[in-house]
Amino acid sequence: MSHSIVSADALLSFCVACFKKLGLNSEDAQITAENLVFANLRGVDSHGVIRLKVYADRLEAGGFRVRSNRRIISEGDAFALMDADHGVGQVAGLEAMRLAIGKAEKAGVGFVAVKNSNHFGAAAFYALRAVERGMIGLAATNAGASMAPTGGRVGRLGNNPVSIAIPSGKYPPVVLDMATGAVAWGKIFVAQQENKKIPTTWALDKHGNPTDDPNAAAQGGLIQPFGGYKGYGLSFLIDILTGVLSGGGFSTHVKSLYQNLDSASHVAQSFAAINIAGFMPLADFQSRVDQIIDLMHQCPAAPGTERIYVPGEIEHEMEQRRRIEGIPINATLKDELSTLGAKLGVPFPL
Amino acid sequence: MSHSIVSADALLSFCVACFKKLGLNSEDAQITAENLVFANLRGVDSHGVIRLKVYADRLEAGGFRVRSNRRIISEGDAFALMDADHGVGQVAGLEAMRLAIGKAEKAGVGFVAVKNSNHFGAAAFYALRAVERGMIGLAATNAGASMAPTGGRVGRLGNNPVSIAIPSGKYPPVVLDMATGAVAWGKIFVAQQENKKIPTTWALDKHGNPTDDPNAAAQGGLIQPFGGYKGYGLSFLIDILTGVLSGGGFSTHVKSLYQNLDSASHVAQSFAAINIAGFMPLADFQSRVDQIIDLMHQCPAAPGTERIYVPGEIEHEMEQRRRIEGIPINATLKDELSTLGAKLGVPFPL
Repeated sequence: MSHSIVSADALLSFCVACFKKLGLNSEDAQITAENLVFANLRGVDSHGVIRLKVYADRLEAGGFRVRSNRRIISEGDAFALMDADHGVGQVAGLEAMRLAIGKAEKAGVGFVAVKNSNHFGAAAFYALRAVERGMIGLAATNAGASMAPTGGRVGRLGNNPVSIAIPSGKYPPVVLDMATGAVAWGKIFVAQQENKKIPTTWALDKHGNPTDDPNAAAQGGLIQPFGGYKGYGLSFLIDILTGVLSGGGFSTHVKSLYQNLDSASHVAQSFAAINIAGFMPLADFQSRVDQIIDLMHQCPAAPGTERIYVPGEIEHEMEQRRRIEGIPINATLKDELSTLGAKLGVPFPL
Repeated sequence: MSHSIVSADALLSFCVACFKKLGLNSEDAQITAENLVFANLRGVDSHGVIRLKVYADRLEAGGFRVRSNRRIISEGDAFALMDADHGVGQVAGLEAMRLAIGKAEKAGVGFVAVKNSNHFGAAAFYALRAVERGMIGLAATNAGASMAPTGGRVGRLGNNPVSIAIPSGKYPPVVLDMATGAVAWGKIFVAQQENKKIPTTWALDKHGNPTDDPNAAAQGGLIQPFGGYKGYGLSFLIDILTGVLSGGGFSTHVKSLYQNLDSASHVAQSFAAINIAGFMPLADFQSRVDQIIDLMHQCPAAPGTERIYVPGEIEHEMEQRRRIEGIPINATLKDELSTLGAKLGVPFPL
């Protein structure tokens, strides 16, 4: 499939303008747009502007509240609980991450749970905010039920992701950002848009059979957990640490981004920060992280391996390249965004 | 292979007596013995009394310091850093977990990192201490390098485990306790002792080839990470959150329990507690956990599945059974423990 190339700046401006037309204030529009373009820049196209259309649909239908009244329900020296009032997940997420960082500045650790939130895009976006402040950051979310527990055949858990970001010295930050499914759900949408088959370990169809057809997976199918029962266990624990602990939705109470556009999705998230200064000077820590990265890079390679990576390295290099070369947008997505832009009165930059 | 049965009480008394003969004070001997028998009770025999012999060897050779001088290097409202002075990992681990719980009582969250520790046995032992206090508990450790990064063929990371334990209501606590390898290293030792083959997805031999021979795996081989690069990523992050952050050993600096018995192993651990009371009344939380457990149990089953479990459930049921029926000890292990007991002047209870 042919791709067009759009600069990150142009794509960001387009998204910001769309979100403003949809009623978000300038700051909220900027945060949400930055999160989407961040994902595209890092090569995580499944969480990038491919989501803009459904965000627009939910903002118009009411599933995302344009004007929400976020509030802190309870807090202490090292924790807080936020009610996001069904606003945009990115806006609540960034505020919660900043709150966790602020707690960690004083207490050493901060943990913030958020209920009544929404899809928050790429989790690394939040975890990396802690890195900017010399901290370790963590962000996790639950999601609409798309995976069965091990031995089951009906969705009971989301493809719940967690991101942990670590400050480094001479190397880019270490950024783990992984879903607990064998694959990010959005990658199946990308395969749909690009008319490609998927590996049979990614998903089940609606009958519970493995499938290589992204359409069969998307039409009532399920993601398989990664690594068998351990992936199930991690997804289950993330749901407890987000949805159950926050007082928000969990398991089947969380609704998919793509269904019931006018209704709350009951997504919940958690954010944590650990202030490295409590343990050692930041420069010492950064040097130690560089050392462990070196130990991975210098590991003798298995036959067929040219280079060994640490988490976040591939995405960082992609970001460097795409900041210069621009972001590829496939023809289906280009049509979708152009149509959306035309409807909102925002010309798509192609 | 034939098994003998020993009651948990008799096995505990035997271990306590051995540890006292080896020089531990009564409290430390009790803690360490309880940790080993806890693993056997829960069916995690790879972390049970199969480790007693090497613990004894290290206590005698000096790799575990009989009398250690643990100290808090730094602390704040929600965190602490402990130097375990190369004492027994279980003793340092329990103290660190209690410290995390104490921090969480006041600040809402507590996080404690420990350096210069040692093998601490089953991680769930610590995480469950938080559950006893109405909190969520987390315990993680690094370990001697036995896994390669994805694409590598030499050990650079331990089969680093993490446990998270969650208070529940009518059901047993949810307890995730998983290593980041495809299998716990100790299960390969069990297979060795029982002369059984292992699945080829568990380990590589010393040449980097998959093997079904537990001896080939144990003789310079490597565990494979679970779930491919995601398991590698989790193991790498656990090493950073334990070894790198604590100022202790990480990657190849951490030594195996079974090598250099007279030398420090430079193991590092981290412990965290989240006080549920900050978020909602404990009873409400417990009810919500019961609800999510029900949602898993009641999920329609895939063909061939009789029952769907949540993490920790199988181990809990095993514990109930073994408390009544006793703990099976295979002939090789019985010989090893009997010989150790004879040497220390503690009769093995068979």
